[in-house]
Amino acid sequence: MKNPPNPKVAFGERLRQLRKDAGLSQEGLAHKAELDRSYVGAVERGEVNISLINIGILAKAIGVQPYQLLLPADSQVVKKGRTRKA
Amino acid sequence: MKNPPNPKVAFGERLRQLRKDAGLSQEGLAHKAELDRSYVGAVERGEVNISLINIGILAKAIGVQPYQLLLPADSQVVKKGRTRKA
Repeated sequence: MKNPPNPKVAFGERLRQLRKDAGLSQEGLAHKAELDRSYVGAVERGEVNISLINIGILAKAIGVQPYQLLLPADSQVVKKGRTRKA
Repeated sequence: MKNPPNPKVAFGERLRQLRKDAGLSQEGLAHKAELDRSYVGAVERGEVNISLINIGILAKAIGVQPYQLLLPADSQVVKKGRTRKA
């Protein structure tokens, strides 16, 4: 697989994947993160140059470490804090 | 070790570590990344809520993957793209 077209799109795809893995809707994630649902949608569509602080807020709401949101979209997250296919 | 006080400070410490590991001065990194040296200094001091795009630009200039800049400051980066102590 080639690299995604740009970092914002890659981040959005990864966020969507981890959100679904966590069993959360966009609305549920937005609620947990105390962010606007439209903002979460825009991030997932790759429209936002998200900041470090908001990466951390979303990661906490999903229950992953922030760095895991920057891994390729098909990376496996293993509970206990270990990551494969990085 | 306790968690760093905030994500900006943790990021700055990690950036400084990886920059030094790469044998780059702040000025050298700024030049490679085509960013202002004062900006790089502010990021390392934990004063900047850096964006995803600039994380990617700094990572590329240092020669690491963007996610490696979000790992704890004492994480080892192994060349060949593998990471220990994540």
